[in-house]
Amino acid sequence: MTQRILLMSSSRKDQLGYLEHAEAQIHTLLEHEPRRVLFVPYAAVTFSFDTYEGLVKPVFERLGYALESIHRSADPRAAIESAEAIAVGGGNTFALLKRMYDAGLVDAIRARVKAGTPYVGWSAGSNVACPTIRTTNDMPIVQPPTLRALGLVPFQVNPHFISGKPVGHNGESREERLAEFLDINSPEQVFALPEGSALYTDGTEGTVLGDRHALHFLGDGRIETLRENERFPLSRITGPAGMNEWPGFIR
Amino acid sequence: MTQRILLMSSSRKDQLGYLEHAEAQIHTLLEHEPRRVLFVPYAAVTFSFDTYEGLVKPVFERLGYALESIHRSADPRAAIESAEAIAVGGGNTFALLKRMYDAGLVDAIRARVKAGTPYVGWSAGSNVACPTIRTTNDMPIVQPPTLRALGLVPFQVNPHFISGKPVGHNGESREERLAEFLDINSPEQVFALPEGSALYTDGTEGTVLGDRHALHFLGDGRIETLRENERFPLSRITGPAGMNEWPGFIR
Repeated sequence: MTQRILLMSSSRKDQLGYLEHAEAQIHTLLEHEPRRVLFVPYAAVTFSFDTYEGLVKPVFERLGYALESIHRSADPRAAIESAEAIAVGGGNTFALLKRMYDAGLVDAIRARVKAGTPYVGWSAGSNVACPTIRTTNDMPIVQPPTLRALGLVPFQVNPHFISGKPVGHNGESREERLAEFLDINSPEQVFALPEGSALYTDGTEGTVLGDRHALHFLGDGRIETLRENERFPLSRITGPAGMNEWPGFIR
Repeated sequence: MTQRILLMSSSRKDQLGYLEHAEAQIHTLLEHEPRRVLFVPYAAVTFSFDTYEGLVKPVFERLGYALESIHRSADPRAAIESAEAIAVGGGNTFALLKRMYDAGLVDAIRARVKAGTPYVGWSAGSNVACPTIRTTNDMPIVQPPTLRALGLVPFQVNPHFISGKPVGHNGESREERLAEFLDINSPEQVFALPEGSALYTDGTEGTVLGDRHALHFLGDGRIETLRENERFPLSRITGPAGMNEWPGFIR
């Protein structure tokens, strides 16, 4: 079964408006077909789900797609099961994953996307599409039952990728953080996405979208730069050990 | 029982050497008494525990304190139980907490420190002294059994505090991350420590050390600046709900 998964780094690029840089990327996923998109706003922490829907809905409507937030549904799991497309917005990744588990959505979303329902995530919404959220940049402000996530792809994504660290600051750079991840989790792999970049995958092959490169961290210090429209096979990328046997994990 | 707890933001300040800025702070804790310090190097990920001990040992020895790393002990828990002082170094907070649980050290360290054994942590070593590690800046590269930690103090610390975000970048600023934490975890409180700053507490009162201010995030947008040597009572700070009843949690 062909899958259709779009993982975007960020909702904003430079000084552009909300998702403004991503219009072509969203059309790549949804192919101009009339679809009702189900929006998951659970990553919002300091603002309401209503506010979040009000930010995202006009963007999708302008592109020709209807959108409604899952928080309006009395039965969120049923809403997932009848969704024509699923969009998961950014915010705090830990809050997002916890609320997805609390609502019983994780295996439902996974099953739908594996069956061909298009999925678009940005920032935290891209983190939860990975096997785990162990490469999020977010603060672990709440504790989800596990760091295991949707596992729609066999690799990790690092959104909002930025190189180096502020002058005079001794906290870890992003490269150092990812080196730690790779060191302790070999042979897993990470795609680091600068703001505006995205990965699109059909379940067999991945493609870099956006005019900024993506960095493919392969472990052992090997880093490859992938340019716009560059493709890579998924078959050579191994997920976490035992992922296929995780409880409730459907592959 | 008087406690003696020193929570430092960082191992480095500006261009100074490893812990060089912290010499007076360490003497405040250990009071020039001849002590054998037990070092916990578990936050190290991309370098060895031997290497880490080799970095820290000369600093403490120069100040007149013997130091040995716990990884040299066949029975780490027994080593904690006979320690004259405990030092927990920085690195990855998730790796540190997981290894502390794996070695069965969490309740042992808590009991020793509550009984008066001096504790010094920096960066990740300060994060694990808090009720939970939910205000760490680190990437969750591994999954500890819980985010609950030592709970030596009733508040959270945010080490390596730096204000704002890089120009042109849309990831969350540190203030935004902490606002998310406070919003979802009210009435918990956070002390944000710029590099070089530290908090010292005797279990009743806290004191800011180092020539940079600390920021006290009280929730509801209230932020107080605490200057060097400024004191604050711990009695008005509430830990996470139900902390006293956490399994194995000794207060």
